[in-house]
Amino acid sequence: MTINEIDLGVTCDMHVHVREGAMCELVTPTIREGGVSVSYIMPNLQPPVTTLDRVIKYKETLQKLSPKTTFLMSFYLSKELTPELINDAAKLGAIHGIKCYPAGVTTNSAAGVDPNDFTAFYPIFKAMEDNDLILNLHGEKPSVSNDSGSDGRGDIHVLNAESKFLPALAKLHKDFPNLKIVLEHCTTAEAIQTIENINKDIKDPSEIRVAATITAHHLHLIIDDWAGNPINFCKPVAKLPSDRRALVNAAISGKPYFFFGSDSAPHPLENKSKHVNVSAGVFSQLFAIDYVAEVFDQQNSLDKLRDFVSTFGLQFYGINEKALISNQKVKLIRKQHVVPQTITDGKGITMAPFMAGHTLNWSTEWN
Amino acid sequence: MTINEIDLGVTCDMHVHVREGAMCELVTPTIREGGVSVSYIMPNLQPPVTTLDRVIKYKETLQKLSPKTTFLMSFYLSKELTPELINDAAKLGAIHGIKCYPAGVTTNSAAGVDPNDFTAFYPIFKAMEDNDLILNLHGEKPSVSNDSGSDGRGDIHVLNAESKFLPALAKLHKDFPNLKIVLEHCTTAEAIQTIENINKDIKDPSEIRVAATITAHHLHLIIDDWAGNPINFCKPVAKLPSDRRALVNAAISGKPYFFFGSDSAPHPLENKSKHVNVSAGVFSQLFAIDYVAEVFDQQNSLDKLRDFVSTFGLQFYGINEKALISNQKVKLIRKQHVVPQTITDGKGITMAPFMAGHTLNWSTEWN
Repeated sequence: MTINEIDLGVTCDMHVHVREGAMCELVTPTIREGGVSVSYIMPNLQPPVTTLDRVIKYKETLQKLSPKTTFLMSFYLSKELTPELINDAAKLGAIHGIKCYPAGVTTNSAAGVDPNDFTAFYPIFKAMEDNDLILNLHGEKPSVSNDSGSDGRGDIHVLNAESKFLPALAKLHKDFPNLKIVLEHCTTAEAIQTIENINKDIKDPSEIRVAATITAHHLHLIIDDWAGNPINFCKPVAKLPSDRRALVNAAISGKPYFFFGSDSAPHPLENKSKHVNVSAGVFSQLFAIDYVAEVFDQQNSLDKLRDFVSTFGLQFYGINEKALISNQKVKLIRKQHVVPQTITDGKGITMAPFMAGHTLNWSTEWN
Repeated sequence: MTINEIDLGVTCDMHVHVREGAMCELVTPTIREGGVSVSYIMPNLQPPVTTLDRVIKYKETLQKLSPKTTFLMSFYLSKELTPELINDAAKLGAIHGIKCYPAGVTTNSAAGVDPNDFTAFYPIFKAMEDNDLILNLHGEKPSVSNDSGSDGRGDIHVLNAESKFLPALAKLHKDFPNLKIVLEHCTTAEAIQTIENINKDIKDPSEIRVAATITAHHLHLIIDDWAGNPINFCKPVAKLPSDRRALVNAAISGKPYFFFGSDSAPHPLENKSKHVNVSAGVFSQLFAIDYVAEVFDQQNSLDKLRDFVSTFGLQFYGINEKALISNQKVKLIRKQHVVPQTITDGKGITMAPFMAGHTLNWSTEWN
C-alpha cells in the first residue's frame, strides 16, 4: 500500500540559525514554511547572546516574525556567564540551554571556548545541571598540524576534528552525569558509536543524558559533494560514505537519543561564491522536513520519521503541550516539488537553498 | 652561512596545463617567468590531442608564445590512438609521452579511460614501451558510493581515490616492466610508499621505470586549506597533514624517482568563485619554482632543490642538451615578493594565483 500522507504531530528542529536584521526577517518565517513547529535558536550572533535582556529581546523579535512558532532560546557559553545568571535565566524560562563553540571552528565562534580544558566552565555546568538546562556542544577540536610528529597522531584537521573531540564529551558526561548534553550535528560513525555506547543501558527515554542531533544535509552529503561545491560546505564538514550511512542508520533507528537539528545556517549567496574564505553553512530551513523525509523514504523508514523530527526531540528537551505557542500539527504529504535555485527577500539578500534544482518527493502541510 | 643564490641549471616542470586561445596566450609565457626551462604539456584540450597534426600545431603555437621554452608534448590516451600512430609520433619526436585520464575525474577528462581495465590499451602500451615513450597517469579511480556494503570497503571518494588506484599502477608495471610510467601529482603517503617499494632495488637512475611527480601546491596544502577555499581546490585533492609530510619528505629525499610537475591548471576567476561546480585546479605557473623553494627552505633542504626541479626530471625523460631550445640556466635568489591577488591579460581573463597575497622569500632569475 502506498502511503501518501503521514501525521508528524508537533515537529521540532533542535538546531536553528536565524541571525539578526534583514537576514533574520527573511529566514525566521521559513522555519514554519519548512514544516517545523518548535525551533531551538542558536546564540552565535555578533556579539554572542550572553545576557537575559538580549535573549528576551531576541525572542520577541523572532516571535513577531513568526507568531505561531515555538522558540526555544539559548546562551552562548563564554566567560561572561555566571552561575547566578544561569539560575535566573532558568527560573524565568528565558533559555532552554547553552551552546558551546570551540573557538575558531565555525561561523561567529571566535568568542568560543578552549575544548582542551572545560574546567573553567564547571561552575556553569553545575548550575545548568541543577536547573535542567541543556548543554549543546559543537563537537570539534580546532585544527592543528603537528609537523614535529611524523606519525600523524597529533594532527587535527576537518576530517578527524569531531572524532578527536569525543573524549572531551565522555569526560563531561562522567563529571556531570546528570547534565543533559547534545552532541550537535554529528557527522561520523565514531560519534554515532560513542552516543550508542553512552546510552547502552538506557531503559526509558527519561534516563537519557547524552543525545545527538543529525542535520538534513549530513544525511545526504559526503566529502565529494562539498569538494568543489561551496553550497554544501559546512562545519563540521560532511565525511565519508561510511559515515553518512552510520548517520542514516542512527536517524531511522528509532533510538530516542538521535533526533533532528537542521543546523540550517543562512549565508548570502555572495559569501558562498568566493574563491577564498567561503562561509560555512548549509541553508536547509525552507524544506527542512522534506529533505529528511526524502532519506527516510529511500530507506523505507517513513514510519520512523515522526520519532526523529518530533517525539524524541520534544522528549529530551522536556517540551510539553503547555510550552507550545501553537499545537497545530504538521503532516507530510507526497507531493513533488523542485527546490528553487535561489530565494530572495527582494531587498538585496539572495541565498541558494540546499539541493537547489533537485526534485523532492515530499512536502509538508499544516493541519 | 646564509645562502642567497643557488644555480638550478636547466629547470623542468613535468606537468603543465596551458589550454588554448586567450588563456593559452596569457599562461604560456608564465612558464618562463616562473623560472622553468623545460615544460611537459598536457593534452586535455577540447577535443583532446590525439593526432600528429594537432600536436605539431599546438607545439608551434606554444613556441611562438614562448620562444625560449623547451616544450615536450603528449597525446591523450583514447581509443583514437593506434600503435602505428604511436610509432610515427615517436620517430618524428612529436611526443614524449601519453597522458592517461580516468574518465570523469578532473577537468576535460570525459574522454578518458576506464581505470578498472587497461587491457584495451595494451597494444598502445607495447608500442610506447618499444619507443621509450612515457605513460603519465592521473592516478585516481572515479568515486563510487557502495551503499549496499556497510563496511565501506567498496567506497571510492576523493580522499581514497588515489590509494584505490595504486594496485592498477602496480599491475601496469608488472605487465610492462620496461614501460616508463609517471604517477602524476601524487598526494598520499601511500602513493609515495608504493613508488619507494617499486624502486627499492634501483642502483642507477637509468634503471628507474616508475617515477612520481609532486606539485608545488601539494607540498603546501592539506584538506583544511581547500575546505572553504576554492582557490586551493584541485584533483587530486590535498589530503591530510601526514600525507603532506610524506610528499615533502619525498621531494627533499634526493631520490631520483621523485621530481617536480606543477600541474598548474589555470581557470578564470569566475570559475573558481561559484557556489556549485567550481573548476578543479591551482594556478601556480607564475611562481612555480618559488613555491617549491619555500618548502625546501623550511626543511633546510635547499641543497636538494636542483635535483627535484631539474636533474631528476631531465634524467627520467632522457632530455639532453641537444633537445633544449635554450640552455640558459635559472638561478634561485633570496628576494621577497608578494604573490598578487589576481593576474589578468587586460582583455577579460582574470585569475587568482596560488597563495595570492602571501609573501614568498625566493625568486628566480635567468642567467
